[in-house]
Amino acid sequence: MKTKEQEKLTWAIIGGGNGGQSMAGHMGIMGFPVRLYDIFPDTIEAIKSQGGIKVEGEVEGFGKLEFATTKINEVLDGADIIIVVAPALAHRAIAKDCAPHLKDGQVVVLHPGSTFGALEFKQVLEEENCTSNVVIAETESLIYACRSVKPGHVNILGIKGSLKTAAIPANKTEMVVELLNTAYPQMYPGSNVMEISLGNLNAMMHPAPTLLNTSLIESVHDWLYYWDGITPSIGKYVEEMDKERLSIVKALGLNSVDVLENYKIYYNAEAPTLSEAVKKNEAYGGVKGQKSLNTRYVLEDIPMGLVPIVSLGKMLGLDVSRMETIVKLGEQLLDKDFTKTGRTVESLGLSDMTVEEMMSYVETGIRGKIALA
Amino acid sequence: MKTKEQEKLTWAIIGGGNGGQSMAGHMGIMGFPVRLYDIFPDTIEAIKSQGGIKVEGEVEGFGKLEFATTKINEVLDGADIIIVVAPALAHRAIAKDCAPHLKDGQVVVLHPGSTFGALEFKQVLEEENCTSNVVIAETESLIYACRSVKPGHVNILGIKGSLKTAAIPANKTEMVVELLNTAYPQMYPGSNVMEISLGNLNAMMHPAPTLLNTSLIESVHDWLYYWDGITPSIGKYVEEMDKERLSIVKALGLNSVDVLENYKIYYNAEAPTLSEAVKKNEAYGGVKGQKSLNTRYVLEDIPMGLVPIVSLGKMLGLDVSRMETIVKLGEQLLDKDFTKTGRTVESLGLSDMTVEEMMSYVETGIRGKIALA
Repeated sequence: MKTKEQEKLTWAIIGGGNGGQSMAGHMGIMGFPVRLYDIFPDTIEAIKSQGGIKVEGEVEGFGKLEFATTKINEVLDGADIIIVVAPALAHRAIAKDCAPHLKDGQVVVLHPGSTFGALEFKQVLEEENCTSNVVIAETESLIYACRSVKPGHVNILGIKGSLKTAAIPANKTEMVVELLNTAYPQMYPGSNVMEISLGNLNAMMHPAPTLLNTSLIESVHDWLYYWDGITPSIGKYVEEMDKERLSIVKALGLNSVDVLENYKIYYNAEAPTLSEAVKKNEAYGGVKGQKSLNTRYVLEDIPMGLVPIVSLGKMLGLDVSRMETIVKLGEQLLDKDFTKTGRTVESLGLSDMTVEEMMSYVETGIRGKIALA
Repeated sequence: MKTKEQEKLTWAIIGGGNGGQSMAGHMGIMGFPVRLYDIFPDTIEAIKSQGGIKVEGEVEGFGKLEFATTKINEVLDGADIIIVVAPALAHRAIAKDCAPHLKDGQVVVLHPGSTFGALEFKQVLEEENCTSNVVIAETESLIYACRSVKPGHVNILGIKGSLKTAAIPANKTEMVVELLNTAYPQMYPGSNVMEISLGNLNAMMHPAPTLLNTSLIESVHDWLYYWDGITPSIGKYVEEMDKERLSIVKALGLNSVDVLENYKIYYNAEAPTLSEAVKKNEAYGGVKGQKSLNTRYVLEDIPMGLVPIVSLGKMLGLDVSRMETIVKLGEQLLDKDFTKTGRTVESLGLSDMTVEEMMSYVETGIRGKIALA
């Protein structure tokens, strides 16, 4: 049930890429007051000149916006809920830009946070001495499958039927989900941001298959990312890697479904192996394979997905050897130091904590020693 | 110049696969007394029934053999020089089978030895208490590019114009090369078996490209191993990995050319990158890519090539991270413990030696502490 109050919420969308434009357009069509921010003037100008975003596909119509801007203070001023729909690699810079302008009571949702997104955002606000009382949340993935053909025009291919979300501090999750539910009733609460971060299946489905498809990527053949790329051996590798991820989830007493279960629940694609399961998801028939190793599947999903999960697994003394091999292979193939540039328990100041202290921080948002009972 | 004595040498070929049959057939055509051993009765029966091997390609004719046998004592009895042309994974078993029958003065040449082949063969003879005075040697690779269409018929596609060889002890290298030169004038001496072992370019050219071609291997496409498989990124990876190998070669004061130089010298294929160089080797136009990960390029070249080189590099404190990543990736993709089953400085009893002691052993064949001068 929506209250009158909630219906009047003002939404700010940070990021004018495929996801941000789709969300802004969709929300405009749904009648929410919504404004959009992007760093690229061309994108913003195109949207401004037509006053909103044309949406096709699962949703059809013209989403009117309050305004579109390249000024972060403008988009934040008066916004109740701020949705960051941007590459995880940009989260730190966005947090820094937002810090001086955030006000008490505003809610920031990283949509999605990749791994450790909310923790990093919070860390940056602290570094920037932002004292406003802000709740930060993250979602497990992007709710849309979408494309933007040109600025101001998007194609929404699919909308997820459920999406897990949590806030830091965790006792604000229910409030955040209630706000999100005014537009997206399919959002539901997770235990805490650590659970959301560990539910990052992009870290499973993107880097390993991409690297192990190096020859196909650099071949003359067109290929389909999931249908051709998740071969039996590659699918098996991802399933084994996913067990490492789940061992961390379990060690922390959290919940996450495995990749196979994920396809069964969310895509109605049931099969004994991942290689077979992806072929039962018709939507994947249109997902083309990349033509270069330099894509977000590696450049983002390794440092913002695998690297933090590996660092956490090592902190817990768990076997993360397959994930680690993929991190190293990515670093060596692309000549990048993802371990250094990525999010880790060290970079987030968690590595000196005990596991109990870390989880207490994740729950409460307050760093500190736990007094023994 | 051949001496009359050398022309009468009797050669025993151990191994009736592509390489062994090609060598036996070619030597028969050249008029050398030669006999062939294999474990498979079907192969031996087919060759026996026709009295030799039919050779086509670079060499044409019928190579008459003294005899073909499945009995190791028969093939060794009276042989002057014993050429082992077998998968490196079989070297240990072959050494064990040969041990009771070897006689003083016999020369065993592993053709090729992969990495640490001669050291392993020697170790097995010692374990089996073989006290015969035998010289063991190894070659850097197989001298033939060849195929056996069916038992008793081979196709020799190419013969290398030069091939490096060394013996343990190293002061016997010259003698061994002289013997080999009676049939193969293109064989030339290397410093010692360690140099030969580190010249194993199969360890560079096979495992990494195979694993990084996983998707193409498991695709519907036919592909060419070198022309399609050594893409720009894969070629670059191999070149970087090869630098790790050469850092070991250099640290031990040995010599080896890098992969690019190798193609220039031996195949007249000169190009600024490996990916381009392989395309200038016309012979590679016929080398098809495999259709399964379970091939010798991984199952043999990781445990008998990369694993020993990695173990030596670590002993020397050198960066072998790219080679190590490929070992791990292979282990994880194929669910094998190559590090445990492969040749290492540990398994060969070298890891407790100083570098000087190890190299002294490689030179002299005698284990022991070096007295300080």
